[in-house]
Amino acid sequence: MNKTILTLLAVVLLFNCSTAQKVAEVQAINKEEVKSSMIKALEWQEAHPIFALAPTDWTAGAYYVGVARAHKTTKDMMYMAALKNQAYWNNWQTYTRLHHADDVAISYSYIYIDRNEKRKNFVDLEPTKKFLDAHLYEDDNWKAGTDKSEYGRTILWWWCDALFMAPPVLNLYAKHTKQPKYLDEMHKFYMQTYNQLYDEEEQLFARDMRFVWEGNDNPTKEPNGKKVFWSRGNGWVFSGLALILDDMPTDYEHRPFYENLYKEMAEAILKLQPEDGLWRTSLLCPESYDHGEVSGSGFHTFALAWGINNGLIDKKHTTAVKKAWHALKACQHDDGRVGWVQNIGAFPEPASADSWQNFGTGAFLLAGSEILKLD
Amino acid sequence: MNKTILTLLAVVLLFNCSTAQKVAEVQAINKEEVKSSMIKALEWQEAHPIFALAPTDWTAGAYYVGVARAHKTTKDMMYMAALKNQAYWNNWQTYTRLHHADDVAISYSYIYIDRNEKRKNFVDLEPTKKFLDAHLYEDDNWKAGTDKSEYGRTILWWWCDALFMAPPVLNLYAKHTKQPKYLDEMHKFYMQTYNQLYDEEEQLFARDMRFVWEGNDNPTKEPNGKKVFWSRGNGWVFSGLALILDDMPTDYEHRPFYENLYKEMAEAILKLQPEDGLWRTSLLCPESYDHGEVSGSGFHTFALAWGINNGLIDKKHTTAVKKAWHALKACQHDDGRVGWVQNIGAFPEPASADSWQNFGTGAFLLAGSEILKLD
Amino acid sequence: MNKTILTLLAVVLLFNCSTAQKVAEVQAINKEEVKSSMIKALEWQEAHPIFALAPTDWTAGAYYVGVARAHKTTKDMMYMAALKNQAYWNNWQTYTRLHHADDVAISYSYIYIDRNEKRKNFVDLEPTKKFLDAHLYEDDNWKAGTDKSEYGRTILWWWCDALFMAPPVLNLYAKHTKQPKYLDEMHKFYMQTYNQLYDEEEQLFARDMRFVWEGNDNPTKEPNGKKVFWSRGNGWVFSGLALILDDMPTDYEHRPFYENLYKEMAEAILKLQPEDGLWRTSLLCPESYDHGEVSGSGFHTFALAWGINNGLIDKKHTTAVKKAWHALKACQHDDGRVGWVQNIGAFPEPASADSWQNFGTGAFLLAGSEILKLD
Repeated sequence: MNKTILTLLAVVLLFNCSTAQKVAEVQAINKEEVKSSMIKALEWQEAHPIFALAPTDWTAGAYYVGVARAHKTTKDMMYMAALKNQAYWNNWQTYTRLHHADDVAISYSYIYIDRNEKRKNFVDLEPTKKFLDAHLYEDDNWKAGTDKSEYGRTILWWWCDALFMAPPVLNLYAKHTKQPKYLDEMHKFYMQTYNQLYDEEEQLFARDMRFVWEGNDNPTKEPNGKKVFWSRGNGWVFSGLALILDDMPTDYEHRPFYENLYKEMAEAILKLQPEDGLWRTSLLCPESYDHGEVSGSGFHTFALAWGINNGLIDKKHTTAVKKAWHALKACQHDDGRVGWVQNIGAFPEPASADSWQNFGTGAFLLAGSEILKLD
Repeated sequence: MNKTILTLLAVVLLFNCSTAQKVAEVQAINKEEVKSSMIKALEWQEAHPIFALAPTDWTAGAYYVGVARAHKTTKDMMYMAALKNQAYWNNWQTYTRLHHADDVAISYSYIYIDRNEKRKNFVDLEPTKKFLDAHLYEDDNWKAGTDKSEYGRTILWWWCDALFMAPPVLNLYAKHTKQPKYLDEMHKFYMQTYNQLYDEEEQLFARDMRFVWEGNDNPTKEPNGKKVFWSRGNGWVFSGLALILDDMPTDYEHRPFYENLYKEMAEAILKLQPEDGLWRTSLLCPESYDHGEVSGSGFHTFALAWGINNGLIDKKHTTAVKKAWHALKACQHDDGRVGWVQNIGAFPEPASADSWQNFGTGAFLLAGSEILKLD
Repeated sequence: MNKTILTLLAVVLLFNCSTAQKVAEVQAINKEEVKSSMIKALEWQEAHPIFALAPTDWTAGAYYVGVARAHKTTKDMMYMAALKNQAYWNNWQTYTRLHHADDVAISYSYIYIDRNEKRKNFVDLEPTKKFLDAHLYEDDNWKAGTDKSEYGRTILWWWCDALFMAPPVLNLYAKHTKQPKYLDEMHKFYMQTYNQLYDEEEQLFARDMRFVWEGNDNPTKEPNGKKVFWSRGNGWVFSGLALILDDMPTDYEHRPFYENLYKEMAEAILKLQPEDGLWRTSLLCPESYDHGEVSGSGFHTFALAWGINNGLIDKKHTTAVKKAWHALKACQHDDGRVGWVQNIGAFPEPASADSWQNFGTGAFLLAGSEILKLD
């Protein structure tokens, strides 16, 4: 009896020590443990509401994309309860800046609820429609490139994060309402951003024109002389691609473009994965802040696992993905908090064991949602 | 020292193993443990908001009836804080369908607060009054029986759950505002439902006309050929009777009807209690889903304990009630979650260790609130 | 291995036993432990919303002053997330009674957010300005002394708690908006209260005119015949003074008055500290309820530590302050709840290990915020 107790206790105590970041060995995935980690992350995040400007802003938007995908995989009603709760209190509103891609990210969760919770007169997608129509069809100084920004805001989605915020919503809205025009518009604006920010050599996205070298007299460089490719920025694009492809018609004429872009980014991201499984916040200058960063890594892990599960990349990469998950898991505190998340920003900056954000939790949930589907 | 620690540890570890459902022995009731279980249930539920349509709907309504009764027994301000918090954010509103009994269940908590929290200009019972007056005195197609439903919606409260949702509110509102007319109206509509759905032979309620055999060419039957009597459905009626009687004037002319109905149901429910203490979701076909179900069982336990505490049934049934409480307690997870709750539904369906709903927590709190008063 | 585990376990179990109130030894302060206790208090309180009338009332106001000061010291984003969350859902409103000092206490947190969270179009201080202007410049029957109160409401701030509720807000608003007139108005009304309620002999404040002996035919007395000086009431004034002085211009003409008053109160409060570190709810009749009370004690501890940290009182008092902190800490439950808080009231009444209020948690956070700055 005493021996059993001591063994159990040892397990408990060892488990309690895992808050510090550790090199993760590539063990098998215990799916019940994955589910349990995900629920703990959700519970902690729900108990710690945070936002930049409002509970409808992009930080919540990205978080609830993770919650929606966790529900899609597990069907655990804990996720749906959280989704409905925020939607109700947010009154199904987007945030307010109709020209700003960030402010419609939350609508991904609203559309998801509408597709999965068949109750009459519950979901209200009018504010989403109103936003999308204004965003796509009304002129503004971002589209016109006449705002006062010093760094080349000549297109609607002038920063790479935007490719997570609006396109998956447009894509899902097009599918949900059977209106392909929203997908066509998505593609039009997507190409503008791709043409401005995609680096074909590195197969990565610059965050915005400040970090594009070509035609730039004074581009930002890393201390090691390389280009600045931000892990989370590329995570936004890469995971956004998985979300888009997941709901894009298989016969959509531009689908090959997205599949190809996905594969190119997957190649680059896999090549850049550090030994311990987690990407550094600066992809080409990992030595700047030499620790795993969870928001970017979570997005990469999700996208890679999704690619394996959907046949876009080879199954041999499962090892890399498992390693990443184990390392992500080691960044979760015992109480559920997902640490090592770089704060709100626009380029590589350090994180810490305690640093957290709702979108970091969202990235963690996204990763888990596809890890659970691995063979 | 080591020995003491190991003993303490053993207690902790054994306690930690109680999440699985177990046959409960009929031990004594430790009232401090009951209180502690109840508070843990409340805290877990407050941290996991859930609803069908809105935080004012019947699911929250039933939950906060449990919270109110827990406060009435214990006076623990934790319950009152939760009651006031939801009422404030719900702005003292009912849900919106004025013909639907479900949508006024939340008002039980509002009236309770008004009776127990003497602060000027705090509680607003106007929305409740407006609902009740429309519900009772305005015509609608439910009352007229002209709605499109295929299964006999010819009366206002055409499903047995309704007898928990509206009558206790009407009864308490009549008492609180000293307007007996609301009690008289309650009785009028209660009799309609009783006449349609009460099975005098089984002393149980059919959920709705689909499950009434008399005059029904194609009634629903259980696999074993018996009538379908849903545990939670009868729990709604039975616990609703205890709530009504608790606040009904002792000299009310129709009180003997409610007392008699209570006693008949108590007899049936006691007779049907399984050996392990918890009722199956199908009362006459327990083998369909052969596990205890917590929402129905919680309501039965509350109603039975209330009957003992108020002299309506014999004290010898205390053993059955204690057994039920211990078994309910064994369905609570270590973190406070009350599991084994059948999801939202209208007839017997299975539950699981993990399935939960706020109204299940409400049933648990109701049960505890009367268990604490047992001799 | 087993030995290590047992040692660790012993620590855990001993820690778990600390919910009961104990005499605290004057040990060194472990600042990581202080931070951890503070965060646990915050998390528990955020999970247990409570108010008297609304989430904008003085109870929340006092709590979020504590949260703001905890953020000011630690910069932990957990505090800022909580501050922003309540402000957003409260829509930056004060509570509604424009003549009542209580109802603007919440604005301290709004101004704090505006000073520390530099986001455009986020904070809205218009409701605060509207309140303050009405409060200061519009006539009402409190100022006129013509309300119906039986106990001498002849001035705007007729009860000593008011000196925490409004003056620190006015002082900070004056600084934040660079409008000294608000500070001048503060001083005018402060002096009225000081002149009515300050007892120069005892160097303490009567709660209101019921407790002032001079010119009172029937003043309230303690059982031991002494004057009634309420610990929390004096805690409101004393900690309010620290808040005011912290943001008052060093060259403000009336600053010496506040510094002197602070020093007089500090002398009295230090002299009255019981051996175990925590003040009784009745300062001159500690035997009435002979246990430490946390809300008053938290405010005193904050004010004393602030005085040491800012050179207003001698560093030799550090021992007394540390002792108080350790004793406060012993009143915190393992789950974070801060117990031994006297309920809402207006004079000495007992508390218990389980009694809590958000303003008690606020007092705890205030204390911790200055304990962390001690040498």
